[in-house]
Amino acid sequence: MNYDVAIIGAGPAGLSAAIYAARGNLRTVVFEKGLVGGQIILTTEVENYPGYAEPVLAFDLVDNMKKQAERFGAVFFDEEVKAIGLEGICKILETDEGEYRVKSVIYAAGASPRKLSVPGEEKFTGRGVSYCATCDGALYRNKVVAVVGGGDSAVEEALFLTKFASKVYIIHRRDALRAEKVIQERAMQNNKIEFIWNTVVQEITGEKFVEKLELFNRYTNKISELTVDGVFIYVGILPNSILVESRVELDSQGFVVTDETMQTNIPGVFAAGDVIKKVLRQVITAASDGAVAAFSAEKWIEKNQNGFPELK
Amino acid sequence: MNYDVAIIGAGPAGLSAAIYAARGNLRTVVFEKGLVGGQIILTTEVENYPGYAEPVLAFDLVDNMKKQAERFGAVFFDEEVKAIGLEGICKILETDEGEYRVKSVIYAAGASPRKLSVPGEEKFTGRGVSYCATCDGALYRNKVVAVVGGGDSAVEEALFLTKFASKVYIIHRRDALRAEKVIQERAMQNNKIEFIWNTVVQEITGEKFVEKLELFNRYTNKISELTVDGVFIYVGILPNSILVESRVELDSQGFVVTDETMQTNIPGVFAAGDVIKKVLRQVITAASDGAVAAFSAEKWIEKNQNGFPELK
Repeated sequence: MNYDVAIIGAGPAGLSAAIYAARGNLRTVVFEKGLVGGQIILTTEVENYPGYAEPVLAFDLVDNMKKQAERFGAVFFDEEVKAIGLEGICKILETDEGEYRVKSVIYAAGASPRKLSVPGEEKFTGRGVSYCATCDGALYRNKVVAVVGGGDSAVEEALFLTKFASKVYIIHRRDALRAEKVIQERAMQNNKIEFIWNTVVQEITGEKFVEKLELFNRYTNKISELTVDGVFIYVGILPNSILVESRVELDSQGFVVTDETMQTNIPGVFAAGDVIKKVLRQVITAASDGAVAAFSAEKWIEKNQNGFPELK
Repeated sequence: MNYDVAIIGAGPAGLSAAIYAARGNLRTVVFEKGLVGGQIILTTEVENYPGYAEPVLAFDLVDNMKKQAERFGAVFFDEEVKAIGLEGICKILETDEGEYRVKSVIYAAGASPRKLSVPGEEKFTGRGVSYCATCDGALYRNKVVAVVGGGDSAVEEALFLTKFASKVYIIHRRDALRAEKVIQERAMQNNKIEFIWNTVVQEITGEKFVEKLELFNRYTNKISELTVDGVFIYVGILPNSILVESRVELDSQGFVVTDETMQTNIPGVFAAGDVIKKVLRQVITAASDGAVAAFSAEKWIEKNQNGFPELK
């Protein structure tokens, strides 16, 4: 069975790519080894995806996108792509159930926030534990929150959170920040922000929602408790780029590098969503990437039409 | 009255910027001299905005976005921005009703397709006359359509339309295409495509929907009729960039040049949507631009917070 476009990953980027590719009359297959929806389904509600006046359940949002793609003829396979051959004009995908030859690939395998891997973190994700201040900051008006991390993102998001929260602790394992100078200064000057240095979070506790963090000071070896309403974890993002890392250009952090058409360094291979190097990782930006990638794949296939061996 | 961010234009880019800026706790004002919604409200239904399993009325889609922005505190002023002072750290906006000082500007004034300006064009817009094959092509399955124009977009879209239509005429005022060579060849080889050279459309006629084009051959001076179900007009796009053209960097066609954070050449001045130089002009890409612009404006304001004179 063969297709014009194979999309790897069914988060918002992959789903949007499927909508655009299938509607553009390309034979479109989406491979998703886990649940359709990607990272966003870790969240309950989404209130900042433009087009929904009231908050929408994350599950409904991605389910709508999937139905929309299916309505245009995209098919979804619950298979894990194990290997991709990107050398020739036809790309070859090997899954746990078969082999597929396609004209073009859109890689939208997403990314995951790096976890602290401490007790309570998983249990309270979406109930006080967040990895995205842009997404969840507005839910913490007049509350006390902690940010874990010391890089640019951690400090920028702490500053952002001061717009809502009454108090923002920055918990950092070292005694100095890695963040850009001007951002550091802004944080130091902000009287809502308090730094807790040389400290790691050992456990996150609470009843239904996060209530306390158990902290460990790496210098004094002392354990203490901190009462918070939420904790934002900013210790890095891990792109799911391993499947293409040997052939596709990645940046130093492992994100796929694309041009403005979403094409990677390999002709006919596009990437979209959280897995690419980009400014802002949100459902809306992922969906936009997906649309652009599908549009570009369509143009690329049209241009190279004569070069493909007969598929199907 | 003063604001953190002024957004100029309330199409999908401006509305999405308003959602993100207001939700990010920036005091946000949107100026729109015409109808909220931008170009998209020329369309009846939108079926490719990811997140709606069934087609959504264009009016409802943008109305939802507006309500969403208002829910987070954005305000909308029905005023025309007449001049913008972009020199200092504070930007000054002069409208037909007053003057505003703001920290940051997001310019999202949109673009319009260049019109043929012939009788029937306006009357049948959305009823057989289209300016976007990506948007409307799928509605012309097994129908006969014409494309007017001879540049890359015209020929690419004609090729795209052959996936749906039974026949695609390309009507071009000259006797040769301006489109890229490989695209030209693909069009010449496609047996669904027929060229009508040296010809202009004089009138578009029909009952409720487009039925016929009246054609004029510029060489023979002969008038003829062509029966079609739809006509796609690709004779250029006009960005609404006049308000910023003296200060903001534009490309050769007048589109605003931004970096990946949506910032223009002027610090604190961002742009989003159809008015910028970009690959694909769709509601989803405009909304994504708007989100990125608001995110970047927020970061920029935070970074420069100490430099602003006390506003308000």
